[in-house]
Amino acid sequence: WEGEFFPVIPKIKYEGPSSKNPLAYKYYNSEEEILGKKMKDWLRFSVAFWHTFRGTGVDIFGAGTKNWPWEDGTNSVAMSKRRMRAFFEFLNKLGVDKWCFHDRDIAPDGKTLEESNANLDEVVALAKTLQGTRIRPLWGTAQLFVHPRYMHGGATSSELGVYAYAAAQVKKALEVTHYLGGENYVFWGGREGYQTLLITDMERELDHMARFLEAAVAYKKKIGFNGTLLIEPKPQEPTKHQYDWDAATTANFLRKYGLIDEFKLNIECNHATLSGHTCHHELETARINGLLGTIDANSGDPQIGWDTDQFLTDLGEATMVMLSVIKNGGIAPGGFNFDAKLRRESTDVEDLFIAHIGGMDTMARGLRNAAKLIQDGSLAELVRKRYESFDSEIGAQIEAGKADFEILEKKAMEWSDPMVASAKQELAEMIFQSAL
Amino acid sequence: WEGEFFPVIPKIKYEGPSSKNPLAYKYYNSEEEILGKKMKDWLRFSVAFWHTFRGTGVDIFGAGTKNWPWEDGTNSVAMSKRRMRAFFEFLNKLGVDKWCFHDRDIAPDGKTLEESNANLDEVVALAKTLQGTRIRPLWGTAQLFVHPRYMHGGATSSELGVYAYAAAQVKKALEVTHYLGGENYVFWGGREGYQTLLITDMERELDHMARFLEAAVAYKKKIGFNGTLLIEPKPQEPTKHQYDWDAATTANFLRKYGLIDEFKLNIECNHATLSGHTCHHELETARINGLLGTIDANSGDPQIGWDTDQFLTDLGEATMVMLSVIKNGGIAPGGFNFDAKLRRESTDVEDLFIAHIGGMDTMARGLRNAAKLIQDGSLAELVRKRYESFDSEIGAQIEAGKADFEILEKKAMEWSDPMVASAKQELAEMIFQSAL
Amino acid sequence: WEGEFFPVIPKIKYEGPSSKNPLAYKYYNSEEEILGKKMKDWLRFSVAFWHTFRGTGVDIFGAGTKNWPWEDGTNSVAMSKRRMRAFFEFLNKLGVDKWCFHDRDIAPDGKTLEESNANLDEVVALAKTLQGTRIRPLWGTAQLFVHPRYMHGGATSSELGVYAYAAAQVKKALEVTHYLGGENYVFWGGREGYQTLLITDMERELDHMARFLEAAVAYKKKIGFNGTLLIEPKPQEPTKHQYDWDAATTANFLRKYGLIDEFKLNIECNHATLSGHTCHHELETARINGLLGTIDANSGDPQIGWDTDQFLTDLGEATMVMLSVIKNGGIAPGGFNFDAKLRRESTDVEDLFIAHIGGMDTMARGLRNAAKLIQDGSLAELVRKRYESFDSEIGAQIEAGKADFEILEKKAMEWSDPMVASAKQELAEMIFQSAL
Amino acid sequence: WEGEFFPVIPKIKYEGPSSKNPLAYKYYNSEEEILGKKMKDWLRFSVAFWHTFRGTGVDIFGAGTKNWPWEDGTNSVAMSKRRMRAFFEFLNKLGVDKWCFHDRDIAPDGKTLEESNANLDEVVALAKTLQGTRIRPLWGTAQLFVHPRYMHGGATSSELGVYAYAAAQVKKALEVTHYLGGENYVFWGGREGYQTLLITDMERELDHMARFLEAAVAYKKKIGFNGTLLIEPKPQEPTKHQYDWDAATTANFLRKYGLIDEFKLNIECNHATLSGHTCHHELETARINGLLGTIDANSGDPQIGWDTDQFLTDLGEATMVMLSVIKNGGIAPGGFNFDAKLRRESTDVEDLFIAHIGGMDTMARGLRNAAKLIQDGSLAELVRKRYESFDSEIGAQIEAGKADFEILEKKAMEWSDPMVASAKQELAEMIFQSAL
Repeated sequence: WEGEFFPVIPKIKYEGPSSKNPLAYKYYNSEEEILGKKMKDWLRFSVAFWHTFRGTGVDIFGAGTKNWPWEDGTNSVAMSKRRMRAFFEFLNKLGVDKWCFHDRDIAPDGKTLEESNANLDEVVALAKTLQGTRIRPLWGTAQLFVHPRYMHGGATSSELGVYAYAAAQVKKALEVTHYLGGENYVFWGGREGYQTLLITDMERELDHMARFLEAAVAYKKKIGFNGTLLIEPKPQEPTKHQYDWDAATTANFLRKYGLIDEFKLNIECNHATLSGHTCHHELETARINGLLGTIDANSGDPQIGWDTDQFLTDLGEATMVMLSVIKNGGIAPGGFNFDAKLRRESTDVEDLFIAHIGGMDTMARGLRNAAKLIQDGSLAELVRKRYESFDSEIGAQIEAGKADFEILEKKAMEWSDPMVASAKQELAEMIFQSAL
Repeated sequence: WEGEFFPVIPKIKYEGPSSKNPLAYKYYNSEEEILGKKMKDWLRFSVAFWHTFRGTGVDIFGAGTKNWPWEDGTNSVAMSKRRMRAFFEFLNKLGVDKWCFHDRDIAPDGKTLEESNANLDEVVALAKTLQGTRIRPLWGTAQLFVHPRYMHGGATSSELGVYAYAAAQVKKALEVTHYLGGENYVFWGGREGYQTLLITDMERELDHMARFLEAAVAYKKKIGFNGTLLIEPKPQEPTKHQYDWDAATTANFLRKYGLIDEFKLNIECNHATLSGHTCHHELETARINGLLGTIDANSGDPQIGWDTDQFLTDLGEATMVMLSVIKNGGIAPGGFNFDAKLRRESTDVEDLFIAHIGGMDTMARGLRNAAKLIQDGSLAELVRKRYESFDSEIGAQIEAGKADFEILEKKAMEWSDPMVASAKQELAEMIFQSAL
Repeated sequence: WEGEFFPVIPKIKYEGPSSKNPLAYKYYNSEEEILGKKMKDWLRFSVAFWHTFRGTGVDIFGAGTKNWPWEDGTNSVAMSKRRMRAFFEFLNKLGVDKWCFHDRDIAPDGKTLEESNANLDEVVALAKTLQGTRIRPLWGTAQLFVHPRYMHGGATSSELGVYAYAAAQVKKALEVTHYLGGENYVFWGGREGYQTLLITDMERELDHMARFLEAAVAYKKKIGFNGTLLIEPKPQEPTKHQYDWDAATTANFLRKYGLIDEFKLNIECNHATLSGHTCHHELETARINGLLGTIDANSGDPQIGWDTDQFLTDLGEATMVMLSVIKNGGIAPGGFNFDAKLRRESTDVEDLFIAHIGGMDTMARGLRNAAKLIQDGSLAELVRKRYESFDSEIGAQIEAGKADFEILEKKAMEWSDPMVASAKQELAEMIFQSAL
Repeated sequence: WEGEFFPVIPKIKYEGPSSKNPLAYKYYNSEEEILGKKMKDWLRFSVAFWHTFRGTGVDIFGAGTKNWPWEDGTNSVAMSKRRMRAFFEFLNKLGVDKWCFHDRDIAPDGKTLEESNANLDEVVALAKTLQGTRIRPLWGTAQLFVHPRYMHGGATSSELGVYAYAAAQVKKALEVTHYLGGENYVFWGGREGYQTLLITDMERELDHMARFLEAAVAYKKKIGFNGTLLIEPKPQEPTKHQYDWDAATTANFLRKYGLIDEFKLNIECNHATLSGHTCHHELETARINGLLGTIDANSGDPQIGWDTDQFLTDLGEATMVMLSVIKNGGIAPGGFNFDAKLRRESTDVEDLFIAHIGGMDTMARGLRNAAKLIQDGSLAELVRKRYESFDSEIGAQIEAGKADFEILEKKAMEWSDPMVASAKQELAEMIFQSAL
């Protein structure tokens, strides 16, 4: 393959809200400052190699639909390298400087682990060159769910040999992430869960998972990798029940096994809604538990019970997400990875660009809206006033753990029936909407 | 009211599976031994005062439908006492020796907290007498969700006065539970959650909840109450999002605030399914975290998104539940409380009996089936074999945390691609079904 | 009660998007023309008497929370009349000229049907006066779900006496709707469904429902009421399964019983999402079946499995809804009824206004956005192009039902494998978002 | 391939409930008479070629897991024929005499339609021989969802060429089903739906679908195929919204386009629950609309939002299903097709047998239980009594459409408030459970 992979696609530029050009940013203006920080530094966008360059449009009822011109139908090392060059051209045209990858998506499985590792090394060396000084992985990870050997899990497989194989694969993936200058490393345990408890020793499997993660921590330190380790919660699919169901479940696991200071969470919006929570709830739960690490910016369909991995285009949701991020002071060294895929029926090369531009502009609007809300201040004031009875002497006593039931009973009798103010939810929603 | 409240209802007896008598047990034979323990000691049934004696059939679109003959239309102390006498006749006719109650269901709210407490004392004194030597509360609790003062929560209310009021109410409820010889005390935080995060300081509310529970622990110890304190998880309803979403979420909260050793969980099957889990999953999660305390034996409708609180009549679900209970060696001092209500359209007095008999017989069948499975052993053997590769030297090393990634990688390369055995789920399901 | 009910609330005026005044319209400018029609004529807003003036904040776990100053704690005829005056002041201050009501919400049940009818007549006479020349009911209806007699349904009750009672109540409600100049009459069969098929003769119940609706059609004609009859689909709640599950189910029922030309549908957005569809889908299904009558403008919570009846504040959803309405050429004599209630925790009188203003402004923004999309034309063009292969001779043959399988097979062989264009969903979403 | 495909699997026999042999029927005794008909004639079991012989264990996150010994890794005509021989050995060992197939699963796609048809003819000729006199297709169908050309649908594709191609494929599939002596032909429109209404002309697509089905009816008659045509409803997946959402939606479509007498429905239990209904509800809806044709006996997981296609092993569900079937007088020429697949993790050849035996035994138990309930009669009596007020003169008048609102109002006033009996749901559940 010679020349450009996307010859008809220009470098994507900011043209402002009035532009009708699908191949331009209307809201994302990377260098513009919002609340004292550049948009690109709030948003830290990353493209997911797997969906964008390995997504074929396969679904459970149908074959692949994409015929990207650069693909030759093989999964050879040569093809992997050509694909990697196309990927970096894509990043450069979008103006994005971060990327995320699975080991087995960027390089083919070999006949042996050694051969797989060699394949990976060869592709990674190219990626390192292509990265130059500007581009780095937001995070890397090992793919422990596609190969049939992982059908019972990786770290939680009932087979010892698989556990060891998974360990070897994560070891290597940590090494290459480190080599490429990655800032984070993510564990998504797609098959770490069960199909039925009838045949599952859940306690033993969870113990194994903890041992596995401890070993990962040890190895990370050994090789001097200073990136953050993260777990990505998901409630189910492919398993009936994944162990890392949601942020709180994962936090409980980390606390139980003494791993709470070694990991953070990668929150995915579509996973959040599948687990019965809003994305905002999961972000806030992570934040409150000191675990807000990085974000998979995508979205599901509220009437659909599986992971649709759509680009997030809902302004309200994007604004809520950015409110959490701003509250957290940003999420660096985390960022926004587009763990989102083209619809199966979108088959033009330009659709890859349009989808990312749409997703980036939505997050950019979310950031602008959230900033507007914060600068306006009336929503924050409404919240402050709701709790102001606790900004008192007895409130302080309670919050310090010094108000026992006898003191409180005495106060309750003294005060007789307490006044309870309106929550003013509709007013809050009106203020919120006005910022969109 | 003189004479019996249920004159036409006989004492309910065990008549065996061939009986067609709706007012007889066909499976629950209280003194019969199963796996070395009497059925009544495995099952430890309890009747919930609220649903069974205060359930009126009100739903969100309709008025009450029940016209129990002993009700006089008031909520006076006298009526509360008459109702309590009817309740104990009900317990005695069913042959159940445990009960559960909310403070405000057994005695009316007064104009002041003092008056409410006095009302409660009067009714509780009667209950103590009626209990005799045989009957005891499985657990007591405070109702912190009906009164409008609790509209923003109790321990997590945005109003300091409400927090104090809730504390006073829990203090008293702990006292009366202790006085009545209760074995447990449950916190169900129906309103401890939020309707929208837009106006909620979730972190501050959770801190308050932790302070509240710490004070409860201190007070329990102070009065010498040795019963277990428990939290009952529920995902939502009445709030959009309850803080005690499920077992894992609650465990995370308890761990975060250092309360893990002071509380256990009351798992409700209907709450489990509303949170996206099977009841069995929640029981196992509780068990593995050392938190399996007591069980609300009810069931939801898989196509319905709210708490239907139906009596559990599914044999498969009951058998799974009992497998967990047996695995735990029983759940005493917990038990099975029927947090279940008559359908709104069931309006005969005998329906109250039929519903409980049906629920008790279902749990009894579940126990018999689970015992059959355990005695048969083939399911357990299937599970044991699945994991047997870990019953090896290297397996032991892994489980002891002594197998680092380098050792594991070496093994993985040595072993090359691991064999992965069939999970045999369909065989396990066949074995399971054969026990029903 | 003398003087104004809302003395501190001004007449609500349009102040434009930059206004921060919660008691002003920022987007709804009633006389402004959009696509050749005044906003008020596109939107035809109506206030629901029940939620706005009879909603007490009761939920399934809690008592009422509202303490409106005009309420005296009774449900007398006098109170009903005072409340009606407050209601019309509310309408006038909002500048809304339509309302919707249930018979039993505007006037109290009497001891007999005759007395109930007399109560209703008295209140309705007042309402007629208060309406003046400007205000009319968008629709009336009979409340056949609150009273315990309706616990098994109204038209589908297993009890003949209840069927007759329901008929008498609908007869009267049709009369008063006609008397007040109502433009529509709605059937919402909240209890026309089942709790379990085990005890239900669904076929016989559906036959009864059809007979009931036929009688309603006959009576409507007899009294010269020219308003539209409508059915409001809802999937479930309070029943496990309501017969009018969704638009398609209701259409099937109407077709089966030959009622398809006599009824239209009242689509409620929250009911749509509870039945697994978007609101837009239900509107389009109704429209395509010639059944789009009127709309209950509210919204649910995507993570909640029951009817939350929230004011619609989602801009995307509102825009989709308005796209359907514009496609239909408007919905008169239907309109947008706010079947939405204050959150239980919103307890200030001004919250009633804020909620409606927020809902009206959202629909107004939806209208503005939809008009923008239509005027822009690029979305419609994208759709036109997708189907343009059918705008051909053979396409016309197919659409005329003249292309049999042999012709088509011949063509298929001639053409060999067809080209399939990208669906461009992401581009469509980008265009849609740009209008928000 | 010479000799047997399943040399170690014996012919599966009935051994009765006490057998522990996984490779024996414990409940399905094909020749035994139940309610006057042989079990095999009630149940009319069929094996689905696609799941059982083409299911590879692929899921959306993972590769295939099955390594059946007879597969050579190709999809050649020779491989198709070998596979067909294995399939008939499977049928014979199970003792099942019906099967279901998609065209493209039994024979490979060719380079042209002509070649595909020739491939199909060759494999079908072999199948005809293997069928002998005993085995026949329960139904055939065309696979219009796997190939990328169908990404926008078949009959509802936006591309004319695809519509024609689909017609040609259905034409051929009808022919081969007829040739093989098939008793039914099923349309499952997996891609007949939409991903977003933004780009969809739903009305035009539905018109096309109607034209397509009309052409199928005409062609069926032309070739003298007397089998039943059926539509299989499914709510969604792979599309966001399938046009044949559920039984009622499909009935509405058939009525609207005048096709109601030409089609019946194939109800799948897993599709039923995904659409928010019980399987029993969908069967009853089909039955009441005169559309109960055939059944896909499988089951989903109540906590999972996608099609899991599990073998049905729930005794309660199976009993409900059989109650509908018996009420319908059986479902011939329909039957029970196992549209169910091995779990991805079940990889032994014997698992294929165990899964089917488990499914067949469950349906057999359902039949036995349903017969027990019917013979006992107390459930039917309970239902009869519920409606007995309608078995009266005025009841007959109502049911004949002769009771107008004036007559009914007169009666309502005469009778004053009607008595409403208890629904006795808990008693009905107790009776139901006692039959399991």
